[in-house]
Amino acid sequence: MTVNPPSATARQAAEQRLSGLAVPAGALGQLGELAVWWSAVRDTVAADPPGHVRAVIFAGDHGITEFGVSAYPAEITPAMVRVFAAGLGGANVLARQHQVALRVVDVAVNSEFDDVDPAISANKVRRGSGAIHREDALTSEQTQLAIELGRQIARTEIAAGADLLIGGDMGIGNTTIAAALIAANLGLTGTDVAGHGTGIDDAGREHKAMLIDQALSRAAGRFDDPVDTLTAVGSADIAATAGYLAQAAESGVPALLDGLISVAAATIAEQLTPGAAQWWAAGHRSTEPAQSHALDKLGLEPILDLQLRLGEGSGALAAIPLLRSAATLLRDVALLDDVV
Amino acid sequence: MTVNPPSATARQAAEQRLSGLAVPAGALGQLGELAVWWSAVRDTVAADPPGHVRAVIFAGDHGITEFGVSAYPAEITPAMVRVFAAGLGGANVLARQHQVALRVVDVAVNSEFDDVDPAISANKVRRGSGAIHREDALTSEQTQLAIELGRQIARTEIAAGADLLIGGDMGIGNTTIAAALIAANLGLTGTDVAGHGTGIDDAGREHKAMLIDQALSRAAGRFDDPVDTLTAVGSADIAATAGYLAQAAESGVPALLDGLISVAAATIAEQLTPGAAQWWAAGHRSTEPAQSHALDKLGLEPILDLQLRLGEGSGALAAIPLLRSAATLLRDVALLDDVV
Repeated sequence: MTVNPPSATARQAAEQRLSGLAVPAGALGQLGELAVWWSAVRDTVAADPPGHVRAVIFAGDHGITEFGVSAYPAEITPAMVRVFAAGLGGANVLARQHQVALRVVDVAVNSEFDDVDPAISANKVRRGSGAIHREDALTSEQTQLAIELGRQIARTEIAAGADLLIGGDMGIGNTTIAAALIAANLGLTGTDVAGHGTGIDDAGREHKAMLIDQALSRAAGRFDDPVDTLTAVGSADIAATAGYLAQAAESGVPALLDGLISVAAATIAEQLTPGAAQWWAAGHRSTEPAQSHALDKLGLEPILDLQLRLGEGSGALAAIPLLRSAATLLRDVALLDDVV
Repeated sequence: MTVNPPSATARQAAEQRLSGLAVPAGALGQLGELAVWWSAVRDTVAADPPGHVRAVIFAGDHGITEFGVSAYPAEITPAMVRVFAAGLGGANVLARQHQVALRVVDVAVNSEFDDVDPAISANKVRRGSGAIHREDALTSEQTQLAIELGRQIARTEIAAGADLLIGGDMGIGNTTIAAALIAANLGLTGTDVAGHGTGIDDAGREHKAMLIDQALSRAAGRFDDPVDTLTAVGSADIAATAGYLAQAAESGVPALLDGLISVAAATIAEQLTPGAAQWWAAGHRSTEPAQSHALDKLGLEPILDLQLRLGEGSGALAAIPLLRSAATLLRDVALLDDVV
């Protein structure tokens, strides 16, 4: 797949406008850079700030959770899907604060939600995924199906009017999978990428690193192709997130990345659609080491660094007002020539 | 002056509520800490987020500007006061975005604004200030007057319903004065504290450091008393900001600090009213080295780190939605016991 780059003309004109604002040169720091990026992806200098942000939480379970990689049991995944459906999760609270449309999609949860809302599981790919240190996570067909599901969700959100997309996550064990994907993609080891997740101790982290190394070793030689990488050491929910981010870029709609899982999906999406990363900004730096490795690889500097490790899209949601500030400052601050 | 500490009872109850939310332990990172602080200063667990934020830009000129410490001429100070009065500055744009009431007060600008709005200069302390490497900035009486002006402004804003105060700044040359105050207060040198301000080069920074050292040497022995420190190496606008922040704490109203000038005033306010810092949070880390020294001294960890160096209160204003997120998350996220 191919992607058109954001507008170089709008970028250049935005840089010029930025340097003419009634502020000292460079004084807006990262907000200035964000404003220029926003102008480029919107193909409009002094574009309106994102007013129709839409976020989707991709939920799934992971076979590796049975092997002691998380501080929480797998039962938390469906429980949290129900919390989101009830509007009571962290992501819901932030989405309401910032007028973001949020929904949760069951891609591969070990449970059903028809009693809550049949739409949640309407396009479910499978229940759970293989334990990646012992077997493939998915079949190749399931990976393709999950990517296409994510693409379809992006198209739906864009058709609903989105001017910015966010992909969130829910799934106990998913930091292990995301770290493995980043290690596979960047040629790193389990020790390089394993973090504390939702709260495991140092011994737990060493165990997690060892399982990641086993998975990388088991599937060695299969990491040049993004679909095969997802099949071997990924999961259906992250495959869907990758499809979602790739489609956003292909459709010319910007996305704001979240933490580890979102950024792991982004590295895969950049393989699926080279150049897609130009359409993304990074919402926050998580406490997970693999996320920083992946952001470096994508060339993205996160907006926030608040030691968040909630997932759900929360870091991207929390960063929305800063992106809005950036765009609004470029649009509304006086030009120096007009005032002195 | 004395200050009552924020509520220990509310703080403890907030910590307990935080640990019971349907999020992994510690997953809210710094937002969790902010939420606990907000509960303590509002004496209410799960308090409503700040809904009546009021910000005041304290403007003044500085005699040292004639000696080559800034990338901009002193004429920019009154020009920017007029920009704020017209609602076209960076602080205005952010204040509108976040529904913050903002006004500019002329404490010591080398100009008049009666043609714009007589209220701006109604309580002006003086025009400009002495060049601190050669003479005192103020008389002791002017310092007292400026502090009392800041206190009166805080009382007025609180009477208008403020549940959170922000103090911003405008004044070419003010990063030199703020850096000198922090050096005087913390026992640092010009080289430790001098930054690039609005954009001077390395040679300019060395010159700035040298002038600060001259000021510190000229007034050596006078830095134990905050009023004498302001008189010797301060300015009327920063004295007013210090009075404003001290009064907020004494009145039990929290404040969100901004960049270098705000934090320099805060170190003085903490001397005027020991314990006041418990009533403050830090909006952002500026690019000025002295600001980080002062934040460490006050024990405050900033919310944002965006390489902003605009002043005007902009870093605090940009951080408002994060403080609102923190409070709203603690109030509205489900309790784990209620959902599993």
